[in-house]
Amino acid sequence: MKVAKFGGSSVASAKQIKKVADIIKMDLQKKFIVVSAPGKRYKTDQKITDMLIELWDAHEQGTSVYQYIDPIMRRFAEIIEQLELSASILDEIKQTIENQLHNDANPTERLDALKAVGEDSSAKILSAYLASCGLNARYLNPHDAGVTVSDDPGNAKILPASFKKIYSLRSTKEILVIPGFFGYTKEGKLITFSRGGSDITGSIIAAGIKADVYENYTDVDSVYAVNPSIVNNPKKITTLTYKEMRELSYAGFSVFHDEALIPAYREEIPVCIKNTNNPQAPGTLIVSEKKPSEKCVVGIASDTGFCSIYISKYLMNREIGFGRKVFSILEDEGISFEHAPSGIDDLSIIIREKHLPLEKEKQVLKRIQKELRPDLISIHRNLAMIMIVGEGLVRTIGVAQKATSAISSANVNIEMINQGSSEVSMMFGIKAEDLEKAVQSLYAAFFVK
Amino acid sequence: MKVAKFGGSSVASAKQIKKVADIIKMDLQKKFIVVSAPGKRYKTDQKITDMLIELWDAHEQGTSVYQYIDPIMRRFAEIIEQLELSASILDEIKQTIENQLHNDANPTERLDALKAVGEDSSAKILSAYLASCGLNARYLNPHDAGVTVSDDPGNAKILPASFKKIYSLRSTKEILVIPGFFGYTKEGKLITFSRGGSDITGSIIAAGIKADVYENYTDVDSVYAVNPSIVNNPKKITTLTYKEMRELSYAGFSVFHDEALIPAYREEIPVCIKNTNNPQAPGTLIVSEKKPSEKCVVGIASDTGFCSIYISKYLMNREIGFGRKVFSILEDEGISFEHAPSGIDDLSIIIREKHLPLEKEKQVLKRIQKELRPDLISIHRNLAMIMIVGEGLVRTIGVAQKATSAISSANVNIEMINQGSSEVSMMFGIKAEDLEKAVQSLYAAFFVK
Repeated sequence: MKVAKFGGSSVASAKQIKKVADIIKMDLQKKFIVVSAPGKRYKTDQKITDMLIELWDAHEQGTSVYQYIDPIMRRFAEIIEQLELSASILDEIKQTIENQLHNDANPTERLDALKAVGEDSSAKILSAYLASCGLNARYLNPHDAGVTVSDDPGNAKILPASFKKIYSLRSTKEILVIPGFFGYTKEGKLITFSRGGSDITGSIIAAGIKADVYENYTDVDSVYAVNPSIVNNPKKITTLTYKEMRELSYAGFSVFHDEALIPAYREEIPVCIKNTNNPQAPGTLIVSEKKPSEKCVVGIASDTGFCSIYISKYLMNREIGFGRKVFSILEDEGISFEHAPSGIDDLSIIIREKHLPLEKEKQVLKRIQKELRPDLISIHRNLAMIMIVGEGLVRTIGVAQKATSAISSANVNIEMINQGSSEVSMMFGIKAEDLEKAVQSLYAAFFVK
Repeated sequence: MKVAKFGGSSVASAKQIKKVADIIKMDLQKKFIVVSAPGKRYKTDQKITDMLIELWDAHEQGTSVYQYIDPIMRRFAEIIEQLELSASILDEIKQTIENQLHNDANPTERLDALKAVGEDSSAKILSAYLASCGLNARYLNPHDAGVTVSDDPGNAKILPASFKKIYSLRSTKEILVIPGFFGYTKEGKLITFSRGGSDITGSIIAAGIKADVYENYTDVDSVYAVNPSIVNNPKKITTLTYKEMRELSYAGFSVFHDEALIPAYREEIPVCIKNTNNPQAPGTLIVSEKKPSEKCVVGIASDTGFCSIYISKYLMNREIGFGRKVFSILEDEGISFEHAPSGIDDLSIIIREKHLPLEKEKQVLKRIQKELRPDLISIHRNLAMIMIVGEGLVRTIGVAQKATSAISSANVNIEMINQGSSEVSMMFGIKAEDLEKAVQSLYAAFFVK
């Protein structure tokens, strides 16, 4: 039994939805289909969810909403027409939108319900189309599926009791098409997950029905060993562990909404990333454990936008609680940090620059200065991080040597190395301007020779 | 104007004290002499301070003290006789000891005063001997020198007001011989520094009189680039910065009581480590800043006795405050940790094994498990740390490559790399059993070629 989730680009047009139907027809095991809202058809296109949010904003500001509703309806109308489905679906969509704009529930609730229209409509359209192709398929609302969530609008969390309810769906004879991205509270309120949350729904359904595999259809053939915008035509990754995926997604690999993996991760459900536009490609399989292979490095991820705060104080490491005090200041100021490697009398704190705007920087430096009286405190911006990822890496002699050789042969200075804290990755900090040449050299060292 | 401090082995016997006198005679700038208690004359010998502590323990347990007093008095008697000094010094020492055993002050105070007898007697003996050689020298009690300290028996801290008082000693025409290791509270109580605290006294006097140099006489010619018990006949270090010294002393370099450096460090007084038994050797000079040299690595330090706690939790780095909570548990349990490098969903905490006895380990793991619910927690013992130290190291391309190559060519797996948190060092964690071959290979790479 399989769960297949189709992302925004897979349901962006009638043409794409036909591909989805073909994929479902080919494999009778795909009994549970989760869909996103229609995404972009071309690079400069708009996603339906963004259009719904703009509509809401216009409505809240009291401006005329029809110029916002019309393009949304045109998108749906085109899809429904080209799939030759009943116009009643379109009326239903229009009615749902109007209802959320004007009913008397509180605005946060209405916004969540409006944002969910994209996914909900996708599911209605796809189920109708599958039925029109002669398949035994029907739309299933997340409420009826048992997706019960916490009352955190825009950031719902699944409630543990849901999984048992979902498990009972296993006996279905029909293909069930479930909209992603939202669930319902115990009281019956519609609440959305965080953005990109259709992946979460797919993962929840897969965990609940204890699927053999959770197929996640996107518009890429697989996860690549390195960012294709840095290295041309890089190797595809056939198998990844959850841990490897998570480390890769940390720095520049954005195939997956990583929170989404949690339910599948807990149930050890394999996840397969596939391409709707090329379903023959084997894709990338994400598993709990894999056989140790000869090749210990599976991928190289990289990202810019980091900065570091450097604190130095003579005999710092004699002061019990010094680190804790620094972290308390950061927590107080609501700043989440990434890493905090420490020397003997030094501590560096790596932070994503977006989490440390300039006014926060001033405040944090001032507090550290005042409360901890370091000898020296400084901040370094424009850092990039490179992650070399692979299970078994920590037990393989010579990986660090190979990596540091590759980086220095690109004539790049290593600002930071963090190895050993993670069992599946090795992290290098360099100046952002050096990122491309360092990554290219690392890719050549680990994947080309 | 110079301050010269002579360690335990330099005042262990009459023969050694004569060498000290020769050193002082040669250089009229040495106006301030600080001395330790008589140390070991040979490997299996006892230090006077240890003998005084044993005497105190015997006295506290109510056993006969004469078998403990006698050997102490014999040591002093032999020195005084061989230096042909007045026997009145010996009587004075005896009287001080008897007085501290039997007066009615509280026991902690009396213990501190008794422990200080070694240094105090050394100063009395040396000043008398210098006078007998025709030098204008006299004993100066720390009280009269202005060494005013906090009331923390066995762990005194210098009070800032002391330095001004000490500065007024600059006008001295005499050579002043000051016992190390203790000072006096404002109320006049004798309080000792932590063990090895004669270095602290020397550093305080040097900072107070704003000495041109603080000479610290030991029994080695210099600081070596690597532990001589691992590499035969290693290179001597001629100049070190304070920071480099501190990083080296962290892992296996025990030339200096590192807290001792603080007063001298703050006043930027150069410290020269010299050998009483070979005063012609230039020694090692410790300075605030040095010219960038071609050679960026000055030394390789190493130490065993580390362990690490590894914690892994999926999406750990999304939880603001996760690190802080871990450190709070450690602080609660009174465990100081060395480093806490973190990956994406992993955190390693490096602790000296002596700070994490087995019963504490159980308690800490239990609390982390209960309060933070990680996916995985494990502990790794028998780790060794290697520090590669040198100013400028962080700005030199290829150091990490050279180091990792050296370690892997010794067929040693690197468990941990911590680079970039400190500007003057790079840290490697390996299995303790691999320490010698890794250090030998690193030494060959950085110092032999």
